Amino acid sequence: MASGGGSVDRGVDFANYFCTYAFLYHQKEMLSDRVRMDAYYNAIFKNQDHFRGKTVLDVGTGSGILAIWSAQAGARRVYAVEATKMSEHARELVKANGLEDIVEVIESSMEDVILPEKVDVIISEWMGYFLFRESMFDSVICARDRWLKPTGVMYPSHARMWIAPVRSGLVDKKTEDYESAMDDWHNFVNDTKAYYGVDMGALTKPFCDEQKKYYLQTSQWCSLHPEQVIGTPAVIKEIDCLTTSIDDILKVRAQFSSSITVETARFSGFGGWFDVQFRGSTSDPARCVIELTTAPSTVDLTHWGQQVFFLRPAPRVCQGDLVSASFSMERSKMNHRLMEVEFAYGIKDCPPVTSKWYIE
Amino acid sequence: MASGGGSVDRGVDFANYFCTYAFLYHQKEMLSDRVRMDAYYNAIFKNQDHFRGKTVLDVGTGSGILAIWSAQAGARRVYAVEATKMSEHARELVKANGLEDIVEVIESSMEDVILPEKVDVIISEWMGYFLFRESMFDSVICARDRWLKPTGVMYPSHARMWIAPVRSGLVDKKTEDYESAMDDWHNFVNDTKAYYGVDMGALTKPFCDEQKKYYLQTSQWCSLHPEQVIGTPAVIKEIDCLTTSIDDILKVRAQFSSSITVETARFSGFGGWFDVQFRGSTSDPARCVIELTTAPSTVDLTHWGQQVFFLRPAPRVCQGDLVSASFSMERSKMNHRLMEVEFAYGIKDCPPVTSKWYIE
Repeated sequence: MASGGGSVDRGVDFANYFCTYAFLYHQKEMLSDRVRMDAYYNAIFKNQDHFRGKTVLDVGTGSGILAIWSAQAGARRVYAVEATKMSEHARELVKANGLEDIVEVIESSMEDVILPEKVDVIISEWMGYFLFRESMFDSVICARDRWLKPTGVMYPSHARMWIAPVRSGLVDKKTEDYESAMDDWHNFVNDTKAYYGVDMGALTKPFCDEQKKYYLQTSQWCSLHPEQVIGTPAVIKEIDCLTTSIDDILKVRAQFSSSITVETARFSGFGGWFDVQFRGSTSDPARCVIELTTAPSTVDLTHWGQQVFFLRPAPRVCQGDLVSASFSMERSKMNHRLMEVEFAYGIKDCPPVTSKWYIE
Repeated sequence: MASGGGSVDRGVDFANYFCTYAFLYHQKEMLSDRVRMDAYYNAIFKNQDHFRGKTVLDVGTGSGILAIWSAQAGARRVYAVEATKMSEHARELVKANGLEDIVEVIESSMEDVILPEKVDVIISEWMGYFLFRESMFDSVICARDRWLKPTGVMYPSHARMWIAPVRSGLVDKKTEDYESAMDDWHNFVNDTKAYYGVDMGALTKPFCDEQKKYYLQTSQWCSLHPEQVIGTPAVIKEIDCLTTSIDDILKVRAQFSSSITVETARFSGFGGWFDVQFRGSTSDPARCVIELTTAPSTVDLTHWGQQVFFLRPAPRVCQGDLVSASFSMERSKMNHRLMEVEFAYGIKDCPPVTSKWYIE
């Protein structure tokens, strides 16, 4: 299995991951993300020549929306692959929209599916938080290597990860919550000793580690206002969906720098987001290039939001200060769909600080 | 494996179930439940003759508290079995309390463990919501049948399930939440048709089913005030932990009746709770019988609370009205640790109504 993280028990992976996607409520959340929907809708209908008379594979079709649009845009045949029972709803929806002669919904993991032919287009909405959470792009790579014609195009065709210094009051809230959890713990240890004669003190260190991980070392989903971005954003990873291999995305490493653009602020953390582009391919470029961005915005909010990695302490910075950092991201050893991130960052001439976060 | 629900993939079961117990935060919640702690503490220390010089097996020791108390009460040897990594913390705690020569922490599922000897006492805090959720008593039965001496005692020794008619304003809130979710859905269907040319109407029925299950057909954790109980409580199941078999608990069926004890009220639902007793055994009774009850209370609140099965519609009842019902509970086919409950109930001379709920 192209898990990229060694062998993965499929039953466990299903229990941990796929099960969420079997709820219509969750599908509705994604289908109500107007930025996401508009981007895919426009990418398809403003580039209908990529679809008219063509064969299309939709990887992880969910409720089937991308497969249905592909068919409406003129595809000859659409294979819509979905690992969960959502496939049954997708099949209903295809039928209700009169497209059952064009769209074939297949309940299977992408890694197992056998198609009767290669396809002209692979379309997929595979992006997780900060692009790679969920590691679903692995399945898109698998689909591409097995089923895309040499002349085929990827929808989307490119993707980028971005990072910028941000400010946020949440950094204090997180610290307070952590401290309050530890205060509770100390009272609990005292009470347990006094009432029940057992010394729980030996667990203070592991409890502290657990709470620190939860409150301080786990990235936070945020919907940042653009004014919370206090430095120049940097691209830390760019992929061409047509050529990227699993090895290219297993670990993401980058050096970047950002200069502070506001007069003065507290540098609360690094904000991370992504964008994807629908450019077609070099030999068959899109007529109309569409971009889907999850950058901080006042109007174009997405369910992805941004991931914020809070700093402790959060230093004061001034306009023109240079933040230099090296970034690395790997998959969690315990669950290949979750990520572990490290920043080694320095501000102006201060010695660099290294911190680690989990994307859960 | 004594799962009682056919074959269970252990990795999946771990991902779905055991993983929660690997967090110290969760252990602390249970260790802070004063009613639970007092009951076990008193059961052990007021019946030290059951422990002094004896061998004890703690099934699912968690952080090790019951094993430690057993040792402090004079046990010669305590085997503390725990399936999760919490075993490492239990081992630390045992050592920090100077009991490493008496308590042996074993990381294993109960079904797999091999002990060097049979034991005099099996102690376990195995109770889930409404007693049987989590199906952990299966592991206690397995432990008992394999490792308890013929003269051994069970801690706790007995357990009972209770049901009573209750009133609660939450019944309206639930209905409103459901209706609001459906209103949202209808807007979503209209918007998706208007903006994106896809008719989602075919999914209205399954979405409605999903939301109905979530809001209306899933029992609700409540901490009921005793005055919310509007009828006489009935025992619907009683087990002797020393003799009960898996077959006895796989399905719970009961007929019961309750008479309304308040002048007038809305009969919002059935409230379910449990109690357990520490009575020792017939040949070796407890010196001091202790009871742990999760019944509605103003002072003795537990983390188990009560499970409420809300009725729709919630009928008006008056003092003296007789509610007759048949109850049945089975394990969910998808997850043997979750339950499905059915009530067929009639009030006075009205024809009976049958409804189904999930304990999730």
